[in-house]
Amino acid sequence: MQDIANLKYDANGLIPAIIQDAQTNEVLMMAYMNEKSLRATIETGKTHFWSRSRQKYWMKGESSGHTQQVKEIYIDCDKDTLLIKVEQIGGACHEGYRSCFFRKLNSDGQWEIIAEKVFDPEKAYKSK
Amino acid sequence: MQDIANLKYDANGLIPAIIQDAQTNEVLMMAYMNEKSLRATIETGKTHFWSRSRQKYWMKGESSGHTQQVKEIYIDCDKDTLLIKVEQIGGACHEGYRSCFFRKLNSDGQWEIIAEKVFDPEKAYKSK
Repeated sequence: MQDIANLKYDANGLIPAIIQDAQTNEVLMMAYMNEKSLRATIETGKTHFWSRSRQKYWMKGESSGHTQQVKEIYIDCDKDTLLIKVEQIGGACHEGYRSCFFRKLNSDGQWEIIAEKVFDPEKAYKSK
Repeated sequence: MQDIANLKYDANGLIPAIIQDAQTNEVLMMAYMNEKSLRATIETGKTHFWSRSRQKYWMKGESSGHTQQVKEIYIDCDKDTLLIKVEQIGGACHEGYRSCFFRKLNSDGQWEIIAEKVFDPEKAYKSK
C-alpha cells in the first residue's frame, strides 16, 4: 500500500474525502481522513474519518448504523483530494437527510432546503 | 446575498468547493473559494477560485477556455463545504482529463489511470 503514504496530506496530516453514492453519483458528504483512517477504510471496506472538532477517529455509522460500504477510491491530479464511491445505508447526514448537501442557493440568495429527511436523527443517535 | 457571508470559511478565509457535472453527476474537481470568489461565481455564472499555491484569484478556464457554467450551488449541513453543479466546457483537469479524479486505487494498492485525455494540455495552456 505504498501509494497511500505519498498523498498530499495537509499541515495537520489530513486529506479531504468526497463521498459519492456509487449508484446515483449523488455527492453525499465531505469529511477528512488521515493516513490511518484511510488505511482503516481500505482494510475494512467501510469509511473511517478523522473528526477535526472532536479530535478522534470515527467510523461512519458507528452510532447511527448508517455505514458506507466502499466501492471505489479515486485520487485527484494533485493527490490532495480523495473521491470515494460508496453504498450508503440510510442517510449520510447527521440531520437526517440522504446527503449533507440538502440546501440549494435560490434566486433570492437564500439557502433553501430541497430534500426530504430519510430518517429521524433523534432516534438514530439516541442512547447509543 | 446575506447568506454567503455566514458560511464557515476556514482560518484562511477559504471554503472547499466540489465541482460536479450537472448532467452526468461526475465529480470533476475540488478547489477553494473565498467570499470574494464565491460572489464572482454567483454574479458571473462562471466558477472563480482562490489559488492557495499562487495566492491569487482565477476564473476556471481563463487560460484554457475550459470554463464552467454554474447551474446550481449547494451548501452542506455544517456550512463548510460547497457543491457546485456546472456545465463543463472541455475538461476540468489541467492534465487534459475530463475529471481530476482519473486515477483509481486498484487491488494491488496502486493508483491506476482509468480515463482517456479529452484535450492536449500543452496546446491548451500554450502562449496565452
